[in-house]
Parts: sequence; structure tokens; C-alpha cells
Amino acid sequence: MLTEHEIEIRVRYSDADAMGFLHHSRFFVYFEMGRTELLRASGGDYRAMEDAGNLMVVVKAECRYLSPARYDDVLRLHTRIAKVTAAKIEHEYGLFRGATKICEARVTLACIDREGHVQRIPSELGGPGRGDAG
Amino acid sequence: MLTEHEIEIRVRYSDADAMGFLHHSRFFVYFEMGRTELLRASGGDYRAMEDAGNLMVVVKAECRYLSPARYDDVLRLHTRIAKVTAAKIEHEYGLFRGATKICEARVTLACIDREGHVQRIPSELGGPGRGDAG
Amino acid sequence: MLTEHEIEIRVRYSDADAMGFLHHSRFFVYFEMGRTELLRASGGDYRAMEDAGNLMVVVKAECRYLSPARYDDVLRLHTRIAKVTAAKIEHEYGLFRGATKICEARVTLACIDREGHVQRIPSELGGPGRGDAG
Amino acid sequence: MLTEHEIEIRVRYSDADAMGFLHHSRFFVYFEMGRTELLRASGGDYRAMEDAGNLMVVVKAECRYLSPARYDDVLRLHTRIAKVTAAKIEHEYGLFRGATKICEARVTLACIDREGHVQRIPSELGGPGRGDAG
Repeated sequence: MLTEHEIEIRVRYSDADAMGFLHHSRFFVYFEMGRTELLRASGGDYRAMEDAGNLMVVVKAECRYLSPARYDDVLRLHTRIAKVTAAKIEHEYGLFRGATKICEARVTLACIDREGHVQRIPSELGGPGRGDAG
Repeated sequence: MLTEHEIEIRVRYSDADAMGFLHHSRFFVYFEMGRTELLRASGGDYRAMEDAGNLMVVVKAECRYLSPARYDDVLRLHTRIAKVTAAKIEHEYGLFRGATKICEARVTLACIDREGHVQRIPSELGGPGRGDAG
Repeated sequence: MLTEHEIEIRVRYSDADAMGFLHHSRFFVYFEMGRTELLRASGGDYRAMEDAGNLMVVVKAECRYLSPARYDDVLRLHTRIAKVTAAKIEHEYGLFRGATKICEARVTLACIDREGHVQRIPSELGGPGRGDAG
Repeated sequence: MLTEHEIEIRVRYSDADAMGFLHHSRFFVYFEMGRTELLRASGGDYRAMEDAGNLMVVVKAECRYLSPARYDDVLRLHTRIAKVTAAKIEHEYGLFRGATKICEARVTLACIDREGHVQRIPSELGGPGRGDAG
């Protein structure tokens, strides 16, 4: 299983705000793309996990914004699994335009079922998965 | 059942694009709010309809943009049921800032169930509803 | 100058709505990506045009939704310049998942300057451009 | 000048994601609405500040998600100025549905001019403002 991955993202016009900058809320959409693609590059699939009833929900998110990004910029998002426990998985993110660091962030996910009950982190994500006794 | 309704919407910062204008795609989000509130003012509830398995999906949308709107503008959205048949419901929308018309639009909805099969327009929306023989 | 172009778009998690479908408003964001990339493939650049004071604004948009798209679907967007006059440019769009047509649409743009005055369609887009007498 | 304020927000359909929950990125849009309305209730106006060349940019954001919110939920957002220095302003946010706490968050803003140079926090926001020697 891969623990880090990098993707390229071009800032959509509608991702920019009235100052012309990538809106601070959209960074979290990019991070979601980053962890989705990290999982895919490892052979996994969030949509299949979700169809199987394992819903990954964000329980904590933090981001430090270091430099603005603008419409049409091509950015490089580095995603890294920082920590996995039975209950949570934390990814770290670094977003870059060339050598300029745009932001650094950390987002923590937990796993729930359709009824909202907390589940173990699935093995596809490096967690103990369903069969693990604890 | 009401056939028209008016709501007030303040343009969110993140609804504006890099030109400082309300992004043309967000107007459709506003229209969705307009028909939701028209239904609510009639005593209905889209979420309850959806929980009951009646999903309203957009099959056609058109909008003519007449004048730009900006962040923090307070707009007035007029929503009107233009036409209801067994299979479709059409709403007309007019968006205004004071006396200035921002846009005029028409959005057509159909009703499907969770498996994607077409349903009759529910009676809450002025359609024949489930029990109608057609 | 190219008059048509095709791009691939993967549906982001946050592009999907509570029914799990690509939200009808987001299609217009995709079309904007389509015409941006058509222009780029022709050697042009919307951001440079905008920095030069030529703002392209949507004056009319219409879309017929034929089949739903879901999170993580890989879609193919075909963009074609359908008509260019001194005052307007119209693009036609077709969105596909494999052989399934998701939607067909047409969006009309006009060009304004920073003061909101209507300009001729720039020559990069196939219009007469600034220097043309009309 | 007010240091705290409360607003009501109804979750828009397009704010919900494919799980039916308010998407974690949209919370930050709500917080932006919270601080905008706190400022307005104090007699200030972000748009006027921005037109005057004082751009407030997010430099740090963090949120702990405690309970999901769904489409059409009516939420209560409490916004409080937690700290103001010459260079930064921090707001704290609490989002509630009835007695249930949905999330708690903290967002830090700095002020820049159109060229990107750091400015003192404007006096309307409780900062020292332009005239202060520091």
C-alpha cells in the first residue's frame, strides 16, 4: 500500500473567489481529491468502500495558508498518510506551485456505517479492517 | 397550494467568481432554494419527499443573464409554477436587485424513484401523484 | 484556431449532491472548463484575456440532462464553437460516460470591459477583435 | 463594536454531499457568513473594506466536526472574536442544531492590500487600523 502520492490540479474559474484567489474552503475539496487518488493509486476505491457501507467522514481539519493561488494555476498536491489507528486515519497535505508552498494541512477521518456507528478503519486504508478484534 | 413565492437571498462571498460577480452556475442553486421555499410555504417538504423515495431531478434548465450581481447584494427571487403535467413540473424564476432584473430562467423537473424509474409528479407539487391512474 | 476539443473530467466528491448525482449546477462549471481548455489548445488563455481587461460573461445557458452522473465517474466533455458573431460566441457541449450521453448544452458568452461596456468578441475566440470596425 | 453574534443558516441542497451530509468544506463558507454578519451587526461592511483595498485573507483554519448536519437542517452559528492583534484576527465558531453541537472551529485572518502587502487589522474589526504606529 502506498503511503504518499502526488497529483496535479488546475484551479477552476469557479474555485476562485472575488479577490481572484482560490477560496480557502476549496482547499479541502482538493485534499479530498488527493486522498482519493492516493487510495486509487494503491488499488483501492472510496466509492466501492462507500457502496459497501463504509463511509469515511472528516472529524478534524486544519490548514495553514502560506501563499495565494489563482484561477488557472497548475498546483501540485502532495498527500501523505501521517497516522493510522483503529479508529482514525490522518493525512498530511502540502500544496505547491512550482517551488512555492501554497499551504500545509492535516485532515483526520473516521469510518462510520450508514446508521452512523463508528467502524474500524478499513484495511484498504491501512487500518485493522472489519475482521480485526481490536 | 401556492403557485408562486418570493424569497430574499444575500450573495455569499464564495458564490462570487474572480470577476467579483455571482458565478453563472450558482444561479441554479438559488433557483433550487426558490422552489424548495415555494414548496415549504405550501406546507410541503422536499426532504420528506426524498426520504419517501421520490427524487426530483432536473431534466432541463435555461437561464438568460441580464445584469451581474455581486458579493453581498441582497437579491429577490420570484419563483412561479409555470406548468405541471403527469411527468414534469416547470418553474419560472425572476431574480431582482431592487428594480433591476438580474436574470430570468426556467427549470424542468421530473420525478424518479431510487432505482431511477420515472414516477408521476407528486401531488404536493401539483402533479397527479402516486395514486393517479394516468 | 481549433473549433472543437475534448477533455476528461472525473466527478469530485463535492460535485455530487445528496442523491449521489453530479449536481445540475456543476455541469456549467464543467462547460467552463471545456471552453477554457478548447481555447488553451488553440494557444489562447482566458486568464491573460481577463488580465488584459476582456471579461467573458455568460449571457445565456441551457442544458438538457439525459442521464445522471455519479461521484468518481470519468466523463468525456466535447466542446464545440457553434457560432461567433461580433457580439457573442456560442459553444455547444456534449458530456458522455462511455457511450452514454449525460447531457447536451449550449452556453452563450459576451465580452465586456471592467466598466461593464460590451466589447467585440476577441480574435483569439474567433471574433472580430478590438481592431475590427464592425 | 460587537464581539459575538449568532445567525441561522438553512443547509442548501447543493451544500450536502453524496452521503447526504453537509460537506466538510462548506462549513468554512458558513463561518465566512458568520463573521460577515457579525461585522454588519457592528455597523461595518467587508465589501466596503475590500473596495477600499483592505483584503481579509484566511491564514489558518481549523474545525472539529462533532455531529453531521443534513440538507434542509436549520443551524445556528455562533461567531465570537477570540483575539485581535495588529496583524491578525481570530474568530471562534460554534455550529448547533437545537442542543446538538455540530462543530467547533477557529479561523485566523490577516489583512493585505491589492499588492499583497500585509496591512494592520482595520479598526472596524477591532484592530489598530491604518493610522496606528504599531
